[in-house]
Amino acid sequence: MFYIGVDIGGTTIKTGVVDKLGNIVVKSAIKTENIAPELQMQKVGKQIEKLLQSSNLSFDDISGIGVGCPGAINGKKGIVGYSSNLKWTNFHLKDVLESVTLKPVRVANDADAATLGEVIFGVAKNYGVVILLTFGTGVGGGIVIDKKLYEGTNGMVSELGHITLKSNGIKCGCGRRGCYEQYASATALIRQTKSAMLKDKNSLLWSEVLGDIDKVDGKTAFTVAKQGDKTAKKVVDKYVSYIAEGCLNYCNIFRPDAIVFGGGISKEGEYLTEKVVKYLEKYEYGYKGTPKTEILTAMLKNDAGIIGAASLVAEEF
Amino acid sequence: MFYIGVDIGGTTIKTGVVDKLGNIVVKSAIKTENIAPELQMQKVGKQIEKLLQSSNLSFDDISGIGVGCPGAINGKKGIVGYSSNLKWTNFHLKDVLESVTLKPVRVANDADAATLGEVIFGVAKNYGVVILLTFGTGVGGGIVIDKKLYEGTNGMVSELGHITLKSNGIKCGCGRRGCYEQYASATALIRQTKSAMLKDKNSLLWSEVLGDIDKVDGKTAFTVAKQGDKTAKKVVDKYVSYIAEGCLNYCNIFRPDAIVFGGGISKEGEYLTEKVVKYLEKYEYGYKGTPKTEILTAMLKNDAGIIGAASLVAEEF
Repeated sequence: MFYIGVDIGGTTIKTGVVDKLGNIVVKSAIKTENIAPELQMQKVGKQIEKLLQSSNLSFDDISGIGVGCPGAINGKKGIVGYSSNLKWTNFHLKDVLESVTLKPVRVANDADAATLGEVIFGVAKNYGVVILLTFGTGVGGGIVIDKKLYEGTNGMVSELGHITLKSNGIKCGCGRRGCYEQYASATALIRQTKSAMLKDKNSLLWSEVLGDIDKVDGKTAFTVAKQGDKTAKKVVDKYVSYIAEGCLNYCNIFRPDAIVFGGGISKEGEYLTEKVVKYLEKYEYGYKGTPKTEILTAMLKNDAGIIGAASLVAEEF
Repeated sequence: MFYIGVDIGGTTIKTGVVDKLGNIVVKSAIKTENIAPELQMQKVGKQIEKLLQSSNLSFDDISGIGVGCPGAINGKKGIVGYSSNLKWTNFHLKDVLESVTLKPVRVANDADAATLGEVIFGVAKNYGVVILLTFGTGVGGGIVIDKKLYEGTNGMVSELGHITLKSNGIKCGCGRRGCYEQYASATALIRQTKSAMLKDKNSLLWSEVLGDIDKVDGKTAFTVAKQGDKTAKKVVDKYVSYIAEGCLNYCNIFRPDAIVFGGGISKEGEYLTEKVVKYLEKYEYGYKGTPKTEILTAMLKNDAGIIGAASLVAEEF
């Protein structure tokens, strides 16, 4: 039996046939068009048909279709409540794609699907309670409890970047101040790096970007810190303490078996996760007596979207 | 069929026979003694036996025994990992009480049991995802998802007062700085009230406590604010914003159907909850599009411990 994973993005829709082990057998990408979502789903139906043909499979060989989609999703009903990327509102994606394909469809927010993907097929197999945190443009994530995606009653859950780190702190796009995302995203790290550079004209951070501060990205501070630059080290240490503080909140709430790091910053791997573990050891509530949370790095890279989407139906059927 | 609820506290053990509707049929209290926990459980067994006799019931009429206990509990295994109040360490309560009573026993942290009690028998019936927050000496709580207590893999979960409100803020007993509990507990409110009084010698807060600042309690600021005192109003508004900020975090994570307020401060009822709702309306992530969270006041008062404990087995059996 195989699963279909559909990863809907603002510019492309990536679809793949995934086997029981989470390997992609075949995949393709089509453009996300500025058309009615119903028509878009017809095209996805054709995309799946072609994929199956190209791999000598039929609809009988697949148990279901999982769809990961950006935006506010009601997974239980399979409705895209609102997606600013796709400009879809209250779209009954599950119903429509089921009528096109005659296969069971399950929809989830893309970050939620990625979380489940890591649990079913990735680095967090064999962990009971798993939280994924992605550190990219913003901070996103998902919660999986005993292999089940936490979806709440009406969806739109797990805005894990939007908990307070500093009451009345930096203004956040969500309308509030002081959110985790404003301190722990790659965007925040870039801001923190630039700010430190402006205060230290002699830092190696400047040579790393050839004197052009606009070239600073999420890797700059980490790269230069590893070279021993004091200012870069300070930036990284402070930034990691922000990341860790949010992790600690999630430890105290959930006592998860694992927290998985995704997004651009997670590429720092153990250099990052080891620092976070040290912070947790120091500050976790009743640390000595509490069950430990492992800090892992996401395993599914470029195809995480497709595999995560496929895991939605691997779990259910 | 009836349930037994056992509420173990530092000074007394309250036990009751509870019916299917959550009414206490009969109850009693015995002293918590400084004896081996195994012996204490034998006494609880006798306590239950007497209660059943006094109400013309037998062990055959009860489906199970629920136990609420302060401290770090592994509910799945029924082990009290550590309870500073009781000075018990790694005590296999479930196994011992089952061997004494020959009935199924389920153990949970007392705040977790209280949360489930409100869901099964109290104000939060018919709500899917429910979070209880108690504002007393500290801030505690519990999480119930689809009528199931969230217990994690190894327990010791839901330290809901220990998430950051102010990174690097007021030092917390847990070893960290800036925890929610340091701003939103009754203890914090008392500190905030006193601090405001020292800055405004003309505030009615002073006459409320007959000039004795040591008489300030969790009600003082609320009482005087309702009389129109400007300083007291400021204290209450700021305090409520702290309470609300933590609620907002839990909304963004869980999108719960209800948050239930317990503990001393919850006696302020709608005066408090309405202010919190207004704050959420203003700041919740994507509020207009998100499912609403109701803010409720706990219903089970003095007997919440017994009824909460009984709900542990009402759920399971």
